[in-house]
Amino acid sequence: MKRLFFAETFGTASLLAVVIGSGIMGEQLAGGNVAVALLVNTIATVFGLYVLITTLGSVSGAHFNPVVSLVMCLRGQLSKRHTLLYWCAQSIGAVLGAMLAHAMFDLPIGQVSHHVRDGLSLFVSEIIATAGLLFVILRFPSSQVAAGVACYIGAAYLFTASTSFANPAAVLGRMFTDTFSGIAPQSAVMFVVAQVIGALLGWLLAKTLTARHERGERD
Amino acid sequence: MKRLFFAETFGTASLLAVVIGSGIMGEQLAGGNVAVALLVNTIATVFGLYVLITTLGSVSGAHFNPVVSLVMCLRGQLSKRHTLLYWCAQSIGAVLGAMLAHAMFDLPIGQVSHHVRDGLSLFVSEIIATAGLLFVILRFPSSQVAAGVACYIGAAYLFTASTSFANPAAVLGRMFTDTFSGIAPQSAVMFVVAQVIGALLGWLLAKTLTARHERGERD
Amino acid sequence: MKRLFFAETFGTASLLAVVIGSGIMGEQLAGGNVAVALLVNTIATVFGLYVLITTLGSVSGAHFNPVVSLVMCLRGQLSKRHTLLYWCAQSIGAVLGAMLAHAMFDLPIGQVSHHVRDGLSLFVSEIIATAGLLFVILRFPSSQVAAGVACYIGAAYLFTASTSFANPAAVLGRMFTDTFSGIAPQSAVMFVVAQVIGALLGWLLAKTLTARHERGERD
Amino acid sequence: MKRLFFAETFGTASLLAVVIGSGIMGEQLAGGNVAVALLVNTIATVFGLYVLITTLGSVSGAHFNPVVSLVMCLRGQLSKRHTLLYWCAQSIGAVLGAMLAHAMFDLPIGQVSHHVRDGLSLFVSEIIATAGLLFVILRFPSSQVAAGVACYIGAAYLFTASTSFANPAAVLGRMFTDTFSGIAPQSAVMFVVAQVIGALLGWLLAKTLTARHERGERD
Repeated sequence: MKRLFFAETFGTASLLAVVIGSGIMGEQLAGGNVAVALLVNTIATVFGLYVLITTLGSVSGAHFNPVVSLVMCLRGQLSKRHTLLYWCAQSIGAVLGAMLAHAMFDLPIGQVSHHVRDGLSLFVSEIIATAGLLFVILRFPSSQVAAGVACYIGAAYLFTASTSFANPAAVLGRMFTDTFSGIAPQSAVMFVVAQVIGALLGWLLAKTLTARHERGERD
Repeated sequence: MKRLFFAETFGTASLLAVVIGSGIMGEQLAGGNVAVALLVNTIATVFGLYVLITTLGSVSGAHFNPVVSLVMCLRGQLSKRHTLLYWCAQSIGAVLGAMLAHAMFDLPIGQVSHHVRDGLSLFVSEIIATAGLLFVILRFPSSQVAAGVACYIGAAYLFTASTSFANPAAVLGRMFTDTFSGIAPQSAVMFVVAQVIGALLGWLLAKTLTARHERGERD
Repeated sequence: MKRLFFAETFGTASLLAVVIGSGIMGEQLAGGNVAVALLVNTIATVFGLYVLITTLGSVSGAHFNPVVSLVMCLRGQLSKRHTLLYWCAQSIGAVLGAMLAHAMFDLPIGQVSHHVRDGLSLFVSEIIATAGLLFVILRFPSSQVAAGVACYIGAAYLFTASTSFANPAAVLGRMFTDTFSGIAPQSAVMFVVAQVIGALLGWLLAKTLTARHERGERD
Repeated sequence: MKRLFFAETFGTASLLAVVIGSGIMGEQLAGGNVAVALLVNTIATVFGLYVLITTLGSVSGAHFNPVVSLVMCLRGQLSKRHTLLYWCAQSIGAVLGAMLAHAMFDLPIGQVSHHVRDGLSLFVSEIIATAGLLFVILRFPSSQVAAGVACYIGAAYLFTASTSFANPAAVLGRMFTDTFSGIAPQSAVMFVVAQVIGALLGWLLAKTLTARHERGERD
């Protein structure tokens, strides 16, 4: 139990440190070319996710994401008690990760983002981004799921208008940085609502495409 | 049958959303450096293809491409009825994907491209691009075919003058976006003709290089 | 025999089309940022090599490179007669590949490069680049050699001052393009001499590091 | 013994040649866009690490890094005598690698860097970077460790403020180049102290997350 909690906290903190840290790096060095900054952010995130899921997958499942834990709970693969535990760990980890990134780049710790992200198109983007994430998690062969999630998020950073947060813990952590990857607190609710809808949609899509006899879930 | 149809529709829609969405992202952010925009487009497409072929390959074969289905039909691996079904699914998916990308980026849905792409060199490019795609599909070990197709298309985006559409469904979907990855309707016929020629050529090349006893096809 | 010859011709032509084509694409689109052009060239070459070696390795060994065939001959793994055959195929393929790239980009076919590349530092670079290539080929597990060679050349494009030709057939083909990846004929001899030295050095290094009982060669 | 020593010298020299060489290439070609230069540096290092660890892992374990050897010694997997031997080999290799890179780019051999890198944030960065490296090495399945380390360092180049040296031998070699990747001698001690702390922390983290029965070490 303690190891599960630690793995989710540590993994989510690491993920947010990678996402926010590489966002700062990209922004500081790209000389105003935002596409180059986004490529820096994307490449770091892809490599980081592959490494984190591979190293922590066998401990906690490497969710690092409350809506992933939610769907696992609804599928009967994670108890309600564990789901709450995972949510706590992921939330704590996300905030710690943002602080870690700021410590590395000598920026104020506990900063709040002013980057408002709203509008219907971002709402649609987050639904699609999160649906795709769950679809990938549920459909990939387990031996390749680390590469699969990493590559999926890499694509989604670049093809969705929201640059694919797809993770309420990521939204929480990114609220604490007023840099490239930040999101203003007033935009958070819309993102999380879209992510919950997207996660359920992704689960439904995976269910529809998976033949009954292939399914591992209890339903 | 319904699952096959759904997989091809969903997969082709997703592919086009990735291609067009990342094209828009690249164009909007790259500040006029078209090579950077193309890198954004390429990286998203490579990751997207790897993920889509891995998740849907076991359902429908993950063609997402009418000339791939055509060659599979000619090789006796897909019935004529299924081929027509796949073509419908791919066409519907391609248009839906273009719409989805526009919805995500808050652009008009049902836009028509004005990007004329013609001339002998693009015709040659599309023949080569599509020949290479079929060659890769027919020669790769099935356990690596998702990575193989993704990497091939990544190379072909960058080494062919046409940036390698190599897919009549992609041509159809890209007609509905007046952005980076679009193609004007009057250029469509030439692209599709080149793609059909290229697909047959790629099949021939694969046949020539595959020893009789290795071949899985009925010919 | 015919299949071997065809595979080496086709593979070398494809490789040169990828190298020269993506060089033209990068140069035309990068708006003067040579590093971005080189990244386009590198990414296309990495993906292209992975695909070509995977699809043709089981046919001819996927050398596409006269000094690779030379070392295989010296190790007793390729007969002298086959080596000459491979050299012919690779030379014809390289020239065809350059022509193909020019056809795709609507450039004059049979152009001669004016890009003089000389000096001791490039000589050293080519020795190192080719030594590394042979070392990788001889040391990688065969199931990963396609990825290994692709990744090695990707690194070598970026860390050697010569951008790592490492292949006399590539030198020959690149003489026929006055674009990003070209090399003036008067620079060719020095490059080839360096490549032969490098190939022998790489073989020696691999031998030194491979325990006697692990070696597959006859020496 | 001689083969171990040679492998560590050769591998560390190659690694530094890749790191410093690609740093020079990126800086010379990127026209002032430092993010693009860093991407060149990152991509070359990722590919280079994957290739070096795969080719030399079976010989010496492919440490190329004194703090990796230190932790292996503390875990009882490398004798004290071998550890000293590895440190010598890595130090000699690092200096040779810097010289090799300068030879390739026609720069003075034995140059000293003036790039001062100090401050608490870089100290924190190096602790995190090295902790992550050890964590990855100790937690990755051995069949994927080459890809894991390569991807991890790729992420760490981009998400840590110090661009992740994470290796005292790399610090030593980089002191001998006044280019993109250099570090002034007066900054070296702080980096090495941070790396030792980070390595021990990474070992501790891996221990905490690895169940007793899974551990391969004697403790």
